[in-house]
Amino acid sequence: MSHTHADKDQLLARTRRIAGQIAAIERAIAGEAGCAAILHQVAGVRGAIAGLMDELVAEHMQSHVVAPGLSDAERAQGGDELLAAIRRYAK
Amino acid sequence: MSHTHADKDQLLARTRRIAGQIAAIERAIAGEAGCAAILHQVAGVRGAIAGLMDELVAEHMQSHVVAPGLSDAERAQGGDELLAAIRRYAK
Amino acid sequence: MSHTHADKDQLLARTRRIAGQIAAIERAIAGEAGCAAILHQVAGVRGAIAGLMDELVAEHMQSHVVAPGLSDAERAQGGDELLAAIRRYAK
Amino acid sequence: MSHTHADKDQLLARTRRIAGQIAAIERAIAGEAGCAAILHQVAGVRGAIAGLMDELVAEHMQSHVVAPGLSDAERAQGGDELLAAIRRYAK
Repeated sequence: MSHTHADKDQLLARTRRIAGQIAAIERAIAGEAGCAAILHQVAGVRGAIAGLMDELVAEHMQSHVVAPGLSDAERAQGGDELLAAIRRYAK
Repeated sequence: MSHTHADKDQLLARTRRIAGQIAAIERAIAGEAGCAAILHQVAGVRGAIAGLMDELVAEHMQSHVVAPGLSDAERAQGGDELLAAIRRYAK
Repeated sequence: MSHTHADKDQLLARTRRIAGQIAAIERAIAGEAGCAAILHQVAGVRGAIAGLMDELVAEHMQSHVVAPGLSDAERAQGGDELLAAIRRYAK
Repeated sequence: MSHTHADKDQLLARTRRIAGQIAAIERAIAGEAGCAAILHQVAGVRGAIAGLMDELVAEHMQSHVVAPGLSDAERAQGGDELLAAIRRYAK
């Protein structure tokens, strides 16, 4: 899926940052950090997930929906997949 | 913050499940899994984060805002923290 | 519910602005305005609804959860109502 | 934009229902209905706006991004418009 090496590296870097944020939340809960601080960390990771989703949606649009040279059927499938993902995400 | 052992264990279990989902997304990106599958996984982790946030908000409300015996100032602070977290989360 | 005249006037003003935005969207659809423009208007009204929700949540928190002088039962009920509303909103 | 009469009629019907919900919220605030009831109504209208957005996004995708016969430039523009709208909506 990751359509160029640069894209793939950037997506992996984003995902690893999110893994680090989740690990910090786990430590904060285990260490009984203040509620307000933990709420703040979780709100932050939500933003990071939104950023990852946004990047994946943009890549999918580019590679599987608007890219020149796709067949009509490929485009239709790419578009359906994108709508399904957006709907599930927005739930 | 985690106000009983049962609550804390449940929050930790939730957080570890999310860490597992993030690790699976990292593997999927590294292994160049299909775009649609990865979008689906990210939409799923977004739901899991929402569930964690919901549980933390409910606990914070219970322990720092509505609990009998808090001072007016403690309640006011607990309420402000909750609003700030919800606002940041909703961004 | 609106706990002071100033609050009530502000909430009514916000709600009327939203009604105006919805009327503009209806005209745009009826007049077959461009898709992109309509999408933009709907995204804007979503932000205005979020602002109204935020103000209502803050008022409810203030008046029915943290206000000095409430009974424990009133606070518990106010808190439960707030969590229910936030959950429904986040769906 | 509305690409068939059936689509346009359905979008107009949705928009009018939302206008009715907003008018009900205005009456509830003016009549000082209970806070919890008003919060519930606003959460409901948020869902209706999400439904309208979803329908518009699906139509835009169909007509301006995946439709057979568009030029590469038209598709690219349609895709960019869709991403911009989704980003603004998700804010």
